Amino acid sequence: MVTIAVDMMGSDKGPEELSKGIIKYLFFNDDVCFKCYGDETRLSSLKDNPRVTIVNTTEVVPMETSPLGFLRMKDSSMLKALQAVKNKEADGLVTAGSTGGFITGATLILKNIQGVKRAGFCSYFPSKVKGKQVAILDLGASNVNTAEELVGFAKLGSIYYRENMKVDNPSVYLLSNGTEEGKGLDESKEAYQLLKNDKDVNFKGNAEARDALDGTKDVIVSSGYPGNIFLKASEGMALTFSSLIKSAFKKNLFTKIGYLLAKKEFDNIHDIFDYKKTGGAMLLGIDGVAVKTHGNSTGDFLFYSLDLAYRMVKGNFVGKVREEFKE
Amino acid sequence: MVTIAVDMMGSDKGPEELSKGIIKYLFFNDDVCFKCYGDETRLSSLKDNPRVTIVNTTEVVPMETSPLGFLRMKDSSMLKALQAVKNKEADGLVTAGSTGGFITGATLILKNIQGVKRAGFCSYFPSKVKGKQVAILDLGASNVNTAEELVGFAKLGSIYYRENMKVDNPSVYLLSNGTEEGKGLDESKEAYQLLKNDKDVNFKGNAEARDALDGTKDVIVSSGYPGNIFLKASEGMALTFSSLIKSAFKKNLFTKIGYLLAKKEFDNIHDIFDYKKTGGAMLLGIDGVAVKTHGNSTGDFLFYSLDLAYRMVKGNFVGKVREEFKE
Repeated sequence: MVTIAVDMMGSDKGPEELSKGIIKYLFFNDDVCFKCYGDETRLSSLKDNPRVTIVNTTEVVPMETSPLGFLRMKDSSMLKALQAVKNKEADGLVTAGSTGGFITGATLILKNIQGVKRAGFCSYFPSKVKGKQVAILDLGASNVNTAEELVGFAKLGSIYYRENMKVDNPSVYLLSNGTEEGKGLDESKEAYQLLKNDKDVNFKGNAEARDALDGTKDVIVSSGYPGNIFLKASEGMALTFSSLIKSAFKKNLFTKIGYLLAKKEFDNIHDIFDYKKTGGAMLLGIDGVAVKTHGNSTGDFLFYSLDLAYRMVKGNFVGKVREEFKE
Repeated sequence: MVTIAVDMMGSDKGPEELSKGIIKYLFFNDDVCFKCYGDETRLSSLKDNPRVTIVNTTEVVPMETSPLGFLRMKDSSMLKALQAVKNKEADGLVTAGSTGGFITGATLILKNIQGVKRAGFCSYFPSKVKGKQVAILDLGASNVNTAEELVGFAKLGSIYYRENMKVDNPSVYLLSNGTEEGKGLDESKEAYQLLKNDKDVNFKGNAEARDALDGTKDVIVSSGYPGNIFLKASEGMALTFSSLIKSAFKKNLFTKIGYLLAKKEFDNIHDIFDYKKTGGAMLLGIDGVAVKTHGNSTGDFLFYSLDLAYRMVKGNFVGKVREEFKE
């Protein structure tokens, strides 16, 4: 049985909404139990569930926090959830709370795996090809990364993709402003040279942001800041199109009939770009399974993050990274 | 009468395709004539037009070029077109050729306007709101910019938006990984402080990539590298959605009828995200009207770039920038 610690506080939609995801996942998976950290008066729907332990906490890490600010909150739901993993009372954790707090807390409490220079946020993106996902990191745990850190991300991303997608030797690209070898920021040009000679990584060169999601690529590596811009620009455009399609079909009686006729195909597009199914972002390189779900997560969204954490624990992802980063 | 120099070489689709855009624009606008630089044997469709002068050139700047390599090609179509503007034989220029060559050439031959620290590529993006465009710079003339350069981009973008869109005091945002004041790269945090106290710019704070195209913003300022990632991620996702919508409607007889019923609304979406109508990227801060159209431009695409160059010449955009950057 896998135990997942869940920080129930700090999300936009509140612990009541997140509780729905917990209940749904318990129904879906018999091999899991949860330790839920948060304001117990707001977790009543989880109360009598035999596979849920509620741990009452009195503080919530705010969206904007400093490392010191984070550590001073001794009774925050996030700190307690992290400590549960550290103390082996839980096998992994999921949070919808402060991203900054989470990076600080995971780094200070769980620490990086030996040999990992920098942890990176990695998330799956839907691609043009239905069912084919692309792993991209770092999405913003750092702003600027060194060439060595980028090489580390390439290795972490490879292992993650291999373990999750059951693909041997996944293809790895550096996100850049051109496909040619000399393109990109200085650190990524240097990383290019290092990766060319790296036997652990199936490095394929640079990928432009325009082609990153064309469905032919497995792992995309970037410094955190441009990675974050990529994530949000793609997500923004996908949401914009989804909402425009929706309004177009709702316009009048004719367009509504049009929708009924083309429904299956459009549900398919909606399915492809359903970001919640990608499961949130995992902080790769941390010595513990640590998943960040969207701050705006619904219960459905959390469901997929819980499943990601479960599968990463079950597949011993962290143990495999430890092994492969050992000198 | 406005004279535009056009570098007809170096694009993916060739001078024959670009010639179609020239012919179409001549038909549309009586107040313009063109100097077309390129291989005259490939420009025969322009030959007997009284408002077109063909200047035969024998060299083409390759996609990847160094500043020295650019300058050594004494008879390239791009160099000749730039020199025509420099020597006042033309009022502005448009090229579909090498981006690197164009930045080098424009900077060395036309030079920056006095007081401008760095020129930036600026393009309009369609937003969620039909008809409302957003100007974004720099899209990749540089990789990394200083805070002072970002402040310069903010001013250039403001003037450009104001002149083009007839909007007084356009709103200016810094592209960042969060809306809070402390978010972003070091240079953009510094630029934030400078812009807060800048009376020439209607600075509104940070914008996340997710919200940049929500239709409430006029000008977005970024360092070149993340700006380029933003451009290509947005464009890539828009193209992906367009192609998915197309295939969805083509699937079978029912979806085809569905399309006919919803056609008007979907043509509308297609119209909103028709990147060619945004007219290509202008290199703002250069002492001359210098427009880069997409390397993959069709004649239709070029048409809008020619129109952008025409309007910028006609409105004395460069003169206004000179005036406002004067100490």
